[in-house]
Order: sequence, then structure tokens, then C-alpha cells
Amino acid sequence: MSQPRCVDDRITLKYGAGGGAMRALIEQIFAPGFGAVPGGVGLAEMDDGAAIPIGDRWLVITTDAHVVQPVTFPGGDIGRLAVCGTVNDLAMMGATEPLALTCAAILEDGFPRAELERIWASIRLACDEAGTTIVTGDTKVMRHGELDRIVLTTTGVGLTSRVVTDRGLAPGDVILVTGTMGDHGLAILATRTELALDTTLASDTAPINGLVRRALAAGGPGVVAMKDPTRGGLASALHEMADKSGVGIVLDERAVPIRDEARAIGELLGIDPLVVANEGKAVIGVRREVAGAVLEALRAHPLGRAAAIVGACVAERPGSVIVDTGFGRRLLVEAEGELQPRIC
Amino acid sequence: MSQPRCVDDRITLKYGAGGGAMRALIEQIFAPGFGAVPGGVGLAEMDDGAAIPIGDRWLVITTDAHVVQPVTFPGGDIGRLAVCGTVNDLAMMGATEPLALTCAAILEDGFPRAELERIWASIRLACDEAGTTIVTGDTKVMRHGELDRIVLTTTGVGLTSRVVTDRGLAPGDVILVTGTMGDHGLAILATRTELALDTTLASDTAPINGLVRRALAAGGPGVVAMKDPTRGGLASALHEMADKSGVGIVLDERAVPIRDEARAIGELLGIDPLVVANEGKAVIGVRREVAGAVLEALRAHPLGRAAAIVGACVAERPGSVIVDTGFGRRLLVEAEGELQPRIC
Repeated sequence: MSQPRCVDDRITLKYGAGGGAMRALIEQIFAPGFGAVPGGVGLAEMDDGAAIPIGDRWLVITTDAHVVQPVTFPGGDIGRLAVCGTVNDLAMMGATEPLALTCAAILEDGFPRAELERIWASIRLACDEAGTTIVTGDTKVMRHGELDRIVLTTTGVGLTSRVVTDRGLAPGDVILVTGTMGDHGLAILATRTELALDTTLASDTAPINGLVRRALAAGGPGVVAMKDPTRGGLASALHEMADKSGVGIVLDERAVPIRDEARAIGELLGIDPLVVANEGKAVIGVRREVAGAVLEALRAHPLGRAAAIVGACVAERPGSVIVDTGFGRRLLVEAEGELQPRIC
Repeated sequence: MSQPRCVDDRITLKYGAGGGAMRALIEQIFAPGFGAVPGGVGLAEMDDGAAIPIGDRWLVITTDAHVVQPVTFPGGDIGRLAVCGTVNDLAMMGATEPLALTCAAILEDGFPRAELERIWASIRLACDEAGTTIVTGDTKVMRHGELDRIVLTTTGVGLTSRVVTDRGLAPGDVILVTGTMGDHGLAILATRTELALDTTLASDTAPINGLVRRALAAGGPGVVAMKDPTRGGLASALHEMADKSGVGIVLDERAVPIRDEARAIGELLGIDPLVVANEGKAVIGVRREVAGAVLEALRAHPLGRAAAIVGACVAERPGSVIVDTGFGRRLLVEAEGELQPRIC
């Protein structure tokens, strides 16, 4: 990210993977020409969403296209994923009470009505959990061969009296995660392998706006940065936060909560749980003096039982993430390339 | 619409065509379980978007997935279409000053960078014309065979102090269109035919929020209903407005402005210009006493030169659209089935 590469002549799978290639695409092609949002957060900030001042509050807005394959997976389906992804992006900006969502569905000709009904039941349930609703949508149908199954694009809006960005870290700040890392990505990958892995690992897809509300209440202005570690996992989230904040982040590897099943699948597939997507977790940066209170608040919530302090910010090596293994230190590298298309 | 059919076991192309099948899909599968928006407009209303009360105003929000094929067509491309479609949906609800848009792009692996840059230049230009900006987005890449080329989903938000719905018509009201009918749909269809039609017909894709602002200023509370005649064309728009308002609409066929080129292509392809999509037009219902002032205001705007009064509302046959041909009367039938997938 600190050395943006030049976008290739063709947009390949790695540009959708949430790492440096995608950021270069946004910086070089999508963002230029769209001005800053005065007093708010716009496209150039490449945060989890945008924030537009309205009176004495901000309207937070965020959008996500969901292309996950398989459509139904252990722990969720594309409908639950769409709602949670959007609700969580709003929460990451401080808008923990989502005002409303929109949902545009693109279906392959011949998509079964029964499956669509199951997906919509899942959408309703996730909306109920998050305390929000779908207020408008769109439907398109494409021919077989033009689209594989179903794509859902959800957009969410929420109001907040304080915007939290992903760039508020300073040396001395503490990094927390709200739970185990890698569950979603590895659960999806496990369904795809020909080994037909016999595992109980399930996606963590969940709306965490209620959990984040607790953290904000406990930490107040001491909560200085938030990001959800989706595509690219904890590694990409920490890299972005470090780079944008101009700090180094030292990650205590042994403190990062990872399920045994996730570790096992990761080892089998040769994939680090720190570089795969989570869909019900947050990375939260806090001032040291509120770290204990925020951790306690997180652990008191059903979705935050495994929350942990996993790192700290330093002035050295701004933009870098250094892993402290307990035996030594190494740089944490972001996933690159086509590790896992259609994971979310 | 007055007799909703049962959704089939498989969702086929007609369910994305904007007619009765799509409305049945929304009514039977998408909308149930999502409550009304208190004091506003929600999913069940199936309007051009939703309206959520915020203080003494409404936040209007609308979303659209764009799948048009070919991606670039006479008069525009998928980028311009996406921005205009969303800006116009906001305007149809009364929000003629779009606060911001979001754009989620899904690309086929290998999509040319140069083409993406052209599309984004077009998006920027359309945003400038409409006086808005893109504030956040998302990017996904799907493999060849999983997605054909590119899909853009745009969402827009705007504030308004008065919401105009598509159901405010009463007997005696007058129906206007802001310009020629059928240009977009027939221009797209002309590019697809093997006859390689030699025509100068171009899509009308344009942001009409400025035009609509003029109409609202001229007609005040006398502007009682608006809808943009996109998928399904004027026929579907009038049917929805008639049905939701509980009035009959008598359409003066000879008063509907249609370009000679559109009429010619329509005759060649056997397609009525009244059932194909427009992307820079509005249908506006007004109280009779303001019809003249609204018409004058529309015609004074570059995008409204061909505006016309095309019909009137009656108490008889609520939900029906009756065409007065000058020689007699017939019912206007909505397009049904797979007339034109991927037209917008």
C-alpha cells in the first residue's frame, strides 16, 4: 500500500481479493475525480464506508456486492452474509444502529424459487438480529452462462453522532480483536476442497453492531479506530490501519484467538488463518487506558467471548505489521493474488 | 397487478422484466416480513425507492443493479446508465438534489483496464451533470463463465422536504411525459439485431433531477405522482400508477411523443415503443389546474423540449390504462415475458 503498483492492462481475480491490488485499482481508477466529502469521509479514504455530515450528525453509507460460492455454507448463506457484511461496515464507522438496508438481487435464469425463499428467510432473520430492515431493492435476471447462480448487493445507511475511522491509531494504542480469526474464509474453503474435509468449522457470519455498541460505550472517545477483517483477513485490516494511521503495529501471535479446527484446516490447505476473511469480527484500536474496559465489555457479549488484546502500536516502521512469535519477530505479509475468489 | 399470479418454481427472465411477474416476485417472496416504514415509504409500497423520516425531512434511498448488454451503446454506457438510473429514481420520490451515490462493481476476470477507465470517466461525467458524487463502493471479480463482462449496482441517497409517490392520482388529474418514449430500449435492441439496423436512434440516458426540480417548482403540491418509465416502459409505469392510485388512465395515443426512428425500429422489430425502457424521462401526474404551468416549465428545460400532456385520470376501470387512438378505445396491455433481458 505504501508503494502502489500500476494496475495491469486486465483486471484479474487478485483485484477483487481485498489486498494491495484492489487498493491500487481504487486509487488509480475508481477514486480520481471524486472530491472529498467536506467534514466527512469519502471514496478517497477507502474506509469501510462513507460519512456525510447532516446537521449535527453523520449519515454513514456503505455498499457491498456478495458473490460467495457455495451460496449456502456451514454457518450461513449469501443472504445472511449480505446483511451482516453491510451492518458490520456501518458499525465499523460508528453507526451501530442501522437505519435501513437496500438489497439488489441478480439471479441466474432458472434459479429455484425454494432456494430464493430460503435465502430471503435468512435475510429476514439477520435483519431481526441486527435490528434493521430492507426498505427497497431491485431484481435482474441474467441468462445461464452470463451469471453463476446469484449475486446480492446490499447498501446500508445509519446515523451516528461520532464517526470512527480506520486511521485513528497512534503509538502506544492497543489493538483488540473481538473473537477468533479465520473462521469464515476457512469454512468456505473447506467446502471447496476435493478432500471433503470433515470439520465442524462454521462461518462466523453475524451482525456485530450490538457488540460494537458495547465497546464504544465502554471506551468512549478512547476507541480510536475500527475495521472488520473481511477479505484479506486480519493481515489486510492491520496493514490498512497501520498505513493510514502512520504507525507500526506489533502483533502478539500467541494472543490471536484461532480455533483448533481453523488452525487444522489452515495447515492442511497451507493457508494462514490471518489472511482469510472473517464476517462477524472487528479489529478495534483503543487508547491504552480504556483497553481493559473495552475488553471486558466485549467479553460480556455473546459474540465477544473470545475477544483478546493482540497487539500494540509503535512509532517505528510506519505502515508495517510486525509479528512477535514469542521467539522472534517477522513482518506479516498480506495475501496477494487469487487465494480465494468468491469467499464473500 | 390487480390479480397477482403465483410465482413459478423457477425464476426465469420475465421476473426481471419490470412487469407483473416481477411485482408478484416482490410481493410474494421479497417483501413479506419487512414492516412498513412508519411515516415513510418502504419495500411493500414498491415505489422507485424508500423514504425514511429524519427530523422534518425524509431520507430517500434507492438501489439498482445494471446488467445492460452491450456495455457501451449509442447514447451512453453502463456507467452513465447506472448513475442516471439512480439519480432519476431519487428524483421520482422528490429528492432532486442527490446527496451521494455508492457503486459496487462486479467484473469478469480479464476485463480490460482501458474499458473500465472509459466507464468510470462516463460515471464521473454523469455525476457532474447530476450534481452528485460517488462516496463509497466495492469491487468483486468473478471467473470467466461465472459472469458476463460487468455488473454495476448503484445506490443513491437524497433528502427532501416533500415525498412524491407513484400513487397520488385522483380522477381529473392530468398525465404528462417529459419527452419521447421508447428511445433507450429500442436503441439497445437495434444494436442486437442481426439486421444491423442503420439508425441514428440513441438512448435517452440522462439525469433528469434538474428537470424534475423545475416541474416541482412550477406545480408545487399540484404535482401528485411521479414515476420513471424504465423497464416495461410507459405501459408498465401507467399500470402501476393507475393500480396503486385506484384510478383509470385514459392515454391519448396521438399525443405521446415518439421519434420517427423509434417508431420505425419498433415496427421493424414488432415492438411497441410504449412497452420499452426509457432512461431519461418521467411520467408526472398533476392536478388539472397546474398542468399548463408544469408543461411550460418542462419545455423550457433542454431535457424537456418534447414534454406533452398525454392523458387524464378517470374514476372508471380503476387499475386500467385505456388507449384513445382517436378512432376508438382499447386496453393498453403490459409487456410480459422475456421481451428484452439486459436492457438496463
